[in-house]
Amino acid sequence: MTTLDPVGATCPLPRTETERVLLGHGSGGQLMAELLDDVITPGLGEHEPLEDAAVVTADGVDIVFSTDGFVVTPRFFPGGDIGSLAVFGTVNDLAMRGARPVALSLAYLLEEGFPVDELRRITVSAGQAAEACGVRVVTGDTKVVGRGAADGVYLTTTGIGLRRPGAAPTATGGVPGDVVVLSGPIGAHGMAIMSAREGLGFETAIRSDSRPLHELVAAMIDAGGAGVHTLRDPTRGGLASALNELAAASGVGVEVEESAIGVPEAVASACELLGLDPLHVANEGCLVAFLAPQVADAVLAAMRANPAGREARVIGTVTAGPVGRVAARTLVGSRRVVDMLVGEQLPRIC
Amino acid sequence: MTTLDPVGATCPLPRTETERVLLGHGSGGQLMAELLDDVITPGLGEHEPLEDAAVVTADGVDIVFSTDGFVVTPRFFPGGDIGSLAVFGTVNDLAMRGARPVALSLAYLLEEGFPVDELRRITVSAGQAAEACGVRVVTGDTKVVGRGAADGVYLTTTGIGLRRPGAAPTATGGVPGDVVVLSGPIGAHGMAIMSAREGLGFETAIRSDSRPLHELVAAMIDAGGAGVHTLRDPTRGGLASALNELAAASGVGVEVEESAIGVPEAVASACELLGLDPLHVANEGCLVAFLAPQVADAVLAAMRANPAGREARVIGTVTAGPVGRVAARTLVGSRRVVDMLVGEQLPRIC
Repeated sequence: MTTLDPVGATCPLPRTETERVLLGHGSGGQLMAELLDDVITPGLGEHEPLEDAAVVTADGVDIVFSTDGFVVTPRFFPGGDIGSLAVFGTVNDLAMRGARPVALSLAYLLEEGFPVDELRRITVSAGQAAEACGVRVVTGDTKVVGRGAADGVYLTTTGIGLRRPGAAPTATGGVPGDVVVLSGPIGAHGMAIMSAREGLGFETAIRSDSRPLHELVAAMIDAGGAGVHTLRDPTRGGLASALNELAAASGVGVEVEESAIGVPEAVASACELLGLDPLHVANEGCLVAFLAPQVADAVLAAMRANPAGREARVIGTVTAGPVGRVAARTLVGSRRVVDMLVGEQLPRIC
Repeated sequence: MTTLDPVGATCPLPRTETERVLLGHGSGGQLMAELLDDVITPGLGEHEPLEDAAVVTADGVDIVFSTDGFVVTPRFFPGGDIGSLAVFGTVNDLAMRGARPVALSLAYLLEEGFPVDELRRITVSAGQAAEACGVRVVTGDTKVVGRGAADGVYLTTTGIGLRRPGAAPTATGGVPGDVVVLSGPIGAHGMAIMSAREGLGFETAIRSDSRPLHELVAAMIDAGGAGVHTLRDPTRGGLASALNELAAASGVGVEVEESAIGVPEAVASACELLGLDPLHVANEGCLVAFLAPQVADAVLAAMRANPAGREARVIGTVTAGPVGRVAARTLVGSRRVVDMLVGEQLPRIC
């Protein structure tokens, strides 16, 4: 009997390739969650998962603090551009913790040779977006790298905000019996980027839903107070990933009605054409909420009175479990498990 | 007489090239100041220059807020790496406004294919640096771009901090008669990066001075209170650019003694070899201060009792003007004007 060397000492090549970062590690889905859990959170010496927006207590004041990088391509797309997207994205991350934005920072990473005119347009757009949200960009940074060491311009925005009194929404706040509400139709941002990107062979009238949600959240908290348990804007990874993350964080299950989830017809057609599930497509202008049942009607009414929530609907309920499981009742009445996005659907979506 | 068309209508090429971002726009010197003044500050709708660290008042609490991108190459260099540099750099920006760090965010921009092991090393270094400063990284972001759309990894750190009571140092705080103090020798970071970078043809034992300065600042404020008028860490653009910025912001002149400015021998030799002025070389572990004369001795003594300020020295005085002019008395007794760095000395130094 021949004994094979179990550690491969006789093999000229190592058995496992060096682990490398994949595009999917930035997708907002399963791979990214693994990178965070295996490398980043323990590397930083943290024990808790990093939240999209953290709450920091300083001199007795609760400050909400959030950062986000933007690498979207193309930089100008139907319904927005990298400048306004960066501002709205960070304003929304603050809003998901119940905060109004107080100040933003904006860090530019520029590639040598980038047209100054385009930089100006992006900066003006960011400034207008900030003004529309009633917040100022108070500090920033500019780095330039050589040609080929970046692709034009990348932005990193960081925001600080103050919580509105009366509510402290958190990813861990969902409890069985909560009503799951979605503020509007899904899939527009991801499909707008796809349609704008060259070479994908289709073009539609889909515009990104990129917009600020802090006023919608303010109206929800005014109406529902502490009954607003959990808020999340389903960006990268789409609604499916957001619901999975919330279910896991809260230690609950989620059951949704597929028929209740609004998908614009153009988005549905494009998804069918490309073989994508709209539940995995990125959004930049809607939110999903877990609400205490006794406040759900009042919050829903308040949402519908706000331009960003006019199409708000109940899409499901929070269940006792199985913990972390998201299930959908399909249009034909069967049930399916809704998984997180695995791998990468569309790189550089935000 | 032939009339030449003054607008070049007969010329097949436009007379002015489209303005493009240059490496020098990220140098911390004159070009960067112009980009900020001409494009970024007005584009954002701001009237005041953006400060390195802004002070934001929220619910009656003054929060210091600062952001900084890091693109240094090589990522590991004598005396530090991109992870610790990013943390210390942001801690120092907060400290220059008299703040202790309260929380940090860390946004990664990764190139597809980047080794996960290296990402882990950088993250661990950032985590250890944060621990050494008594601050936590509480939130973050991870974006991945395709191969060739970045060079490995870039980091953006943002910090929030709280001002120590008793002082509010600001770039505009210098007044004629102030004593100019430098906390230690200059040029080590820039020369360490140069020596570590391939292809420059020299190698030295120079280590970056990258380190946190918040405890040094705390000791200074304890000793000098409101007499600590102005603090600045002379990073990109070096001591010369920092002094020019402070002179302009405070509406004063500055006069320094060249002989009082410590330049390690290895740094001086390397600068001579490369034809660089040590005053333009980047630092990551020293600060320059404008101090009221009545507190200068006490502050200097406190600085020297701190490891980061052991070699602190008086290097000059703040004068009534000419406003914005920095002059140096040279070793041979003549006087020269010390200009800001123009163009780019060494890209991707931090």
